[in-house]
Amino acid sequence: MKPRFNVLTIGVDNLDKSYAFYHNGLGLASKGIVGKEFEHGAIAFFDLQNGMTLALYPRKSLALDAGIPVSAPSPTGFSIGHNVRSKAEVDSLMELAKKAGAKINERARDRFWGGYSGYFQDPDGNLWEVVYNPNMIPVD
Amino acid sequence: MKPRFNVLTIGVDNLDKSYAFYHNGLGLASKGIVGKEFEHGAIAFFDLQNGMTLALYPRKSLALDAGIPVSAPSPTGFSIGHNVRSKAEVDSLMELAKKAGAKINERARDRFWGGYSGYFQDPDGNLWEVVYNPNMIPVD
Repeated sequence: MKPRFNVLTIGVDNLDKSYAFYHNGLGLASKGIVGKEFEHGAIAFFDLQNGMTLALYPRKSLALDAGIPVSAPSPTGFSIGHNVRSKAEVDSLMELAKKAGAKINERARDRFWGGYSGYFQDPDGNLWEVVYNPNMIPVD
Repeated sequence: MKPRFNVLTIGVDNLDKSYAFYHNGLGLASKGIVGKEFEHGAIAFFDLQNGMTLALYPRKSLALDAGIPVSAPSPTGFSIGHNVRSKAEVDSLMELAKKAGAKINERARDRFWGGYSGYFQDPDGNLWEVVYNPNMIPVD
């Protein structure tokens, strides 16, 4: 298996609400919700850096596509780590997420491994960690 | 917010078993399970292409780190899309995953949007889609 993945699809319960959070609230660019002309086809894509794509997809549609039953959200199922270049940038991004309607479940603080991070949850409870890691500074 | 994320952390119930699946079964390179010297610190990292990292982290540790209660697995919570260069490559990767102990919940088949894909679940029920998308051919 090649060491990569290309798309992270997040299961959501209300696609319009989730799209508004990521696009209007966090400011991620997108062509909007597409595929509405197909039954269970509605989905939103966000093109990210390095050829990665973030997709928002109703949980029910994902269940049908993957051949599994719909399951309730699970906040400890996964966490998306977004690295930034300073502690101040962690704080400002946490503030932006809060204004966009995120739940701040863990305020940013120093971590035992030498970094500084906080966690927020999107409208569906999906977890993001905003991280300043002095050993992993991203290129903007 | 910059359009990126850097780390995808998957919540697992049995770190050793999950690590064996990804490292021995799927063949992803890693330095192994690290951080055992810290309480709730054990974690495994896989360096992927384009500066991405996949991390396996016990659900209980993630809950403590993020300040939320532990929740049961939810297979429709997210799906990791792994693109390949041909339909044959989808089939062979699905076969590799099956041999590694994955549950094949949706055999590879043609999709209405013009591609070909199948889904498998890792030992914790986490969902992967193996995708041949003629409009999104990865560079190996």
